[in-house]
Amino acid sequence: MRQYASIHTDLALEAHAAAVKTDWDQQGVQVDTQEFAGGTVTRVRVLDARGAARMGKPPGNYITIEAPGLRQHDVELREQVGQILAEELKSLLPPLDKSSVTLVVGLGNWHVTPDSLGPLVIEELLVTRHLFEYAPEHVDEGMRSVCALAPGVLGITGIETSDIIAGVVEKVQPAIIIAIDALAALSIERLGTTIQIADTGINPGSGVGNKRHALNRETLGVPVIAIGVPSVVYANTIVLDAMQKLTASLRAAAGQGTNVGEVLRDLSREEQGQLVHEVLNPFWGNLIVTPKEIDEQIRQMSKVIAGGLNVALQPGLESSDTLKYLQ
Amino acid sequence: MRQYASIHTDLALEAHAAAVKTDWDQQGVQVDTQEFAGGTVTRVRVLDARGAARMGKPPGNYITIEAPGLRQHDVELREQVGQILAEELKSLLPPLDKSSVTLVVGLGNWHVTPDSLGPLVIEELLVTRHLFEYAPEHVDEGMRSVCALAPGVLGITGIETSDIIAGVVEKVQPAIIIAIDALAALSIERLGTTIQIADTGINPGSGVGNKRHALNRETLGVPVIAIGVPSVVYANTIVLDAMQKLTASLRAAAGQGTNVGEVLRDLSREEQGQLVHEVLNPFWGNLIVTPKEIDEQIRQMSKVIAGGLNVALQPGLESSDTLKYLQ
Amino acid sequence: MRQYASIHTDLALEAHAAAVKTDWDQQGVQVDTQEFAGGTVTRVRVLDARGAARMGKPPGNYITIEAPGLRQHDVELREQVGQILAEELKSLLPPLDKSSVTLVVGLGNWHVTPDSLGPLVIEELLVTRHLFEYAPEHVDEGMRSVCALAPGVLGITGIETSDIIAGVVEKVQPAIIIAIDALAALSIERLGTTIQIADTGINPGSGVGNKRHALNRETLGVPVIAIGVPSVVYANTIVLDAMQKLTASLRAAAGQGTNVGEVLRDLSREEQGQLVHEVLNPFWGNLIVTPKEIDEQIRQMSKVIAGGLNVALQPGLESSDTLKYLQ
Amino acid sequence: MRQYASIHTDLALEAHAAAVKTDWDQQGVQVDTQEFAGGTVTRVRVLDARGAARMGKPPGNYITIEAPGLRQHDVELREQVGQILAEELKSLLPPLDKSSVTLVVGLGNWHVTPDSLGPLVIEELLVTRHLFEYAPEHVDEGMRSVCALAPGVLGITGIETSDIIAGVVEKVQPAIIIAIDALAALSIERLGTTIQIADTGINPGSGVGNKRHALNRETLGVPVIAIGVPSVVYANTIVLDAMQKLTASLRAAAGQGTNVGEVLRDLSREEQGQLVHEVLNPFWGNLIVTPKEIDEQIRQMSKVIAGGLNVALQPGLESSDTLKYLQ
Repeated sequence: MRQYASIHTDLALEAHAAAVKTDWDQQGVQVDTQEFAGGTVTRVRVLDARGAARMGKPPGNYITIEAPGLRQHDVELREQVGQILAEELKSLLPPLDKSSVTLVVGLGNWHVTPDSLGPLVIEELLVTRHLFEYAPEHVDEGMRSVCALAPGVLGITGIETSDIIAGVVEKVQPAIIIAIDALAALSIERLGTTIQIADTGINPGSGVGNKRHALNRETLGVPVIAIGVPSVVYANTIVLDAMQKLTASLRAAAGQGTNVGEVLRDLSREEQGQLVHEVLNPFWGNLIVTPKEIDEQIRQMSKVIAGGLNVALQPGLESSDTLKYLQ
Repeated sequence: MRQYASIHTDLALEAHAAAVKTDWDQQGVQVDTQEFAGGTVTRVRVLDARGAARMGKPPGNYITIEAPGLRQHDVELREQVGQILAEELKSLLPPLDKSSVTLVVGLGNWHVTPDSLGPLVIEELLVTRHLFEYAPEHVDEGMRSVCALAPGVLGITGIETSDIIAGVVEKVQPAIIIAIDALAALSIERLGTTIQIADTGINPGSGVGNKRHALNRETLGVPVIAIGVPSVVYANTIVLDAMQKLTASLRAAAGQGTNVGEVLRDLSREEQGQLVHEVLNPFWGNLIVTPKEIDEQIRQMSKVIAGGLNVALQPGLESSDTLKYLQ
Repeated sequence: MRQYASIHTDLALEAHAAAVKTDWDQQGVQVDTQEFAGGTVTRVRVLDARGAARMGKPPGNYITIEAPGLRQHDVELREQVGQILAEELKSLLPPLDKSSVTLVVGLGNWHVTPDSLGPLVIEELLVTRHLFEYAPEHVDEGMRSVCALAPGVLGITGIETSDIIAGVVEKVQPAIIIAIDALAALSIERLGTTIQIADTGINPGSGVGNKRHALNRETLGVPVIAIGVPSVVYANTIVLDAMQKLTASLRAAAGQGTNVGEVLRDLSREEQGQLVHEVLNPFWGNLIVTPKEIDEQIRQMSKVIAGGLNVALQPGLESSDTLKYLQ
Repeated sequence: MRQYASIHTDLALEAHAAAVKTDWDQQGVQVDTQEFAGGTVTRVRVLDARGAARMGKPPGNYITIEAPGLRQHDVELREQVGQILAEELKSLLPPLDKSSVTLVVGLGNWHVTPDSLGPLVIEELLVTRHLFEYAPEHVDEGMRSVCALAPGVLGITGIETSDIIAGVVEKVQPAIIIAIDALAALSIERLGTTIQIADTGINPGSGVGNKRHALNRETLGVPVIAIGVPSVVYANTIVLDAMQKLTASLRAAAGQGTNVGEVLRDLSREEQGQLVHEVLNPFWGNLIVTPKEIDEQIRQMSKVIAGGLNVALQPGLESSDTLKYLQ
């Protein structure tokens, strides 16, 4: 999908949809979809280098939970999605016993609302590693050792997030890292309604804050599961989308005997970028599109994610117990 | 400017620019522009019903301070703009003596970042009315009685903001009301760089949160000066802008012998609205475009506004004194 | 209880306990206590002027819910207490029909943690009055019209809280006002574990922020129910308590043949006040004692109160519905 | 000072005052005091093991800036204290050149107001290390490489703060660490008015949040300067202080021919602890005494500290430049 070249999506589902449009050969990628009452779970598996090239995503599992109702205040749907997140997450987790530590990393910036999902999840998470260390007598059967970190962002710390995490990994020696991040999507209908779980970790250039370095097994020596929620669409994505929809309409309207099609084709390649630039000047890539209720939406979604993590990581706990340990 | 019919601007400057494009007859509106080192002050005066109809704004004074450098972290420019705001505000204030009370109202919603300007200004404001009432011996020569209110929004209180303010006005009997509000602009380059001061108050449908009722001399019985800062552009504004820029480019490229121009003309009227709808579905009017740094930008702008208000309302204070009284 | 003369309690229960210590004649006051699994409900009824003089509280009903377990993170107890609060509150409410409006007022200061209970409750409250006004078709059978206000404090607004509320009352014409406030207690074991409901409103000098004016049927023309939660003990209360406990110990130890008793008696009256002053200099009355976890405790208690209010005020709602309407 | 055995102070100045009371031999400790317009700078030097034993503090330099006026809103005094902090800090810093990195660590808990000083300072700090790495062309002469970390607390992360810092130190290789912390004081008049700078780092058991592990040259391999501000007095400190003041008064009043003195002596040792316990039950060590305005006080103090750090760490910057770089 050449025109989208300059547009960024962190979602395998969107990358796949884009790939399908231009190329019907689907070797190297497996897709499996499953419905539930409130939405859909899609499991995209990138099998090999060929699939990876087509998708622009490294080989691995990408599970997407879509539940459009999350935009409304539907408490039961939130609980259901938290439960599904827990199940899907468990399918990607290595076996964890009492000696395994899970490190949950909340990426992003407290002070930029649409980038604050990660730190907010850390706040809601059930953290237990210190009990294992200092009060093992309070550790029930079925509890697992979980610790958490919100490392901040480069502009605030002056330190690469990947360096902070690598330093902590050396001390904590986790069996698995789960990294939570706010994502940029192509489609506004995904805002606050979609969760992606990927066992390939975080890869360069992803995320709202444009984190530069990779967080994955290669860089950290530990498998990394990334959980992401789209919280923004970049304004240039929307503007390009608008132009393409207009172009398509014009083509359809113009009919075949005219030269409109050619004019459009010529223009779209050469000038679209410049037009987008004009529309968004002087902010360009820094402008985001969000619903007005983004503060509330991020807060609610952080509870869904933290709830799902607690259920997945603490197999011995029932929900009331979960809350008993929660600060 | 017919195509903009469905687009909303709270800025007289933008309304005027739009009016000028379609109609060169400028009767009923006076415009005066003045440069300063960091920007421009434009004073638009809507003289009569004719000007009001053309502008879509009631007769009165609309002063706009534009300082593009406010987007950067330029402390000196902020101070300068605060000072200019104070001067311009004073030109619209009635004479205030020791017995006159000024009521500053911070409109908007604490919990929606781009709508939080009003409440944040209230936080930074020098409030003195209680000293006049309870500790007149601490009131220096040159101090004026200022009180403040952040009434919240309808969705949180269940009460019309205008009713809350009217109730308080009856008790406090202010000589003048100054209402602070976050605005929607047409142009993204105004985000965080522009301040509008209007002696016509707040009129229906303006503001980020779409406050329904008017706050002006007619509804409150007291003159109302509105101070507004554009903090968002609605996404549909951006999308329409993109489509219009593309259309203009296509027309220019198509040349005169072709039928492109007609195709475009036909399309733009009928289908633009629907295309915008498609691009922004399912959020439509509720999607906003902001810079990623909106949290920080709003915080800084609230200090500029509060600083300007303090200087304008407390003629006897020097800046160090101002701070002495600040909580 | 003379020594406590300079000490302040907002709790009728504590005033009653103090009265009982010095005066066994209990005419004019009725007390009824009831246990539940997690604590106690005490209903103190001040019957007449005689009881009022003894208690230092106007005639009326004072219901206190005590649940020491609220200090721990016991979710089920919180729900139970919310339910009890709802029942007790209903016993004091006038009959409400679809045309009656309830105004809930959250007293206190957002920016002073132990005084922020009121504003936090407003945030969690189910507000419906605007639906009755603008979308009556969305109003289910059994819903009641509720609106809410967090008027701020005198130091921030420069306006008496009672004036703001009186102004809004005139516009909204509520059938009943419920005022939420953080209280000062005498005993630290009440911090975060006790809720007082009183149908006598808020009376001068009560509350953490020392609100000066009364909010009751006399001043507002509408019955006022006050709901209060002790969030601080003033430091001078603790210091006096320490001195009195030491004095009592010394007396007991000294035996009867000595002059210790007299020395102590002489001292305690004259010098205690001065000693307390020395200990707390230079802050004196402004120093508060709170648990370190006060931020979290206030947040949790605000949910208990808001939950109880929602259940009491919306008779037609089940808990899941409650949440559906929230926000 | 036996009676204070159970009482904790993080301030060398208070430890020294206590030591002086009981032991006039001052070998091993050097004290130097210097006045300035708004207060005093005291430099305590613990020279050897003997001094360390007497003070309960390791050998090193402890500089205390006291400025009682900081309790009021005195902007000029704040700037002056920030400047003095910068000077005193520079006297303890090793020589820093363009290749040296300074790591500033903000200890404490965002969500516990009196423990939030460290994280708040990090927010206000001028962080530059990423410019040195990614945009060296924007690094002016006289700038130094500074990075920052707010590692959270054990209860939130499940990871020892010292482990997080040690991990980051390995990656960042700083020449010096500066650790900011909120402290507990013995005397309430120090709350928000005192800054302590110590080149001995952070030692076990200090701080509001009772951080367990040491942060010093031994544990981190890098010299650590600690900057602390007293934000709480533990309630047991206040209660003991009250009892001791009462005891002293009683002794003075009783005269020499009586047995009061003996009674008091006997009581004070054996029973004081128990009485304190009774007064503070069921919270005991967890109760803190703070001024009501602690939220605002912490916020202001964090600006003083961050300002002082910026001046000390960025020798080439003037104050307006400092702000230019500040986010």
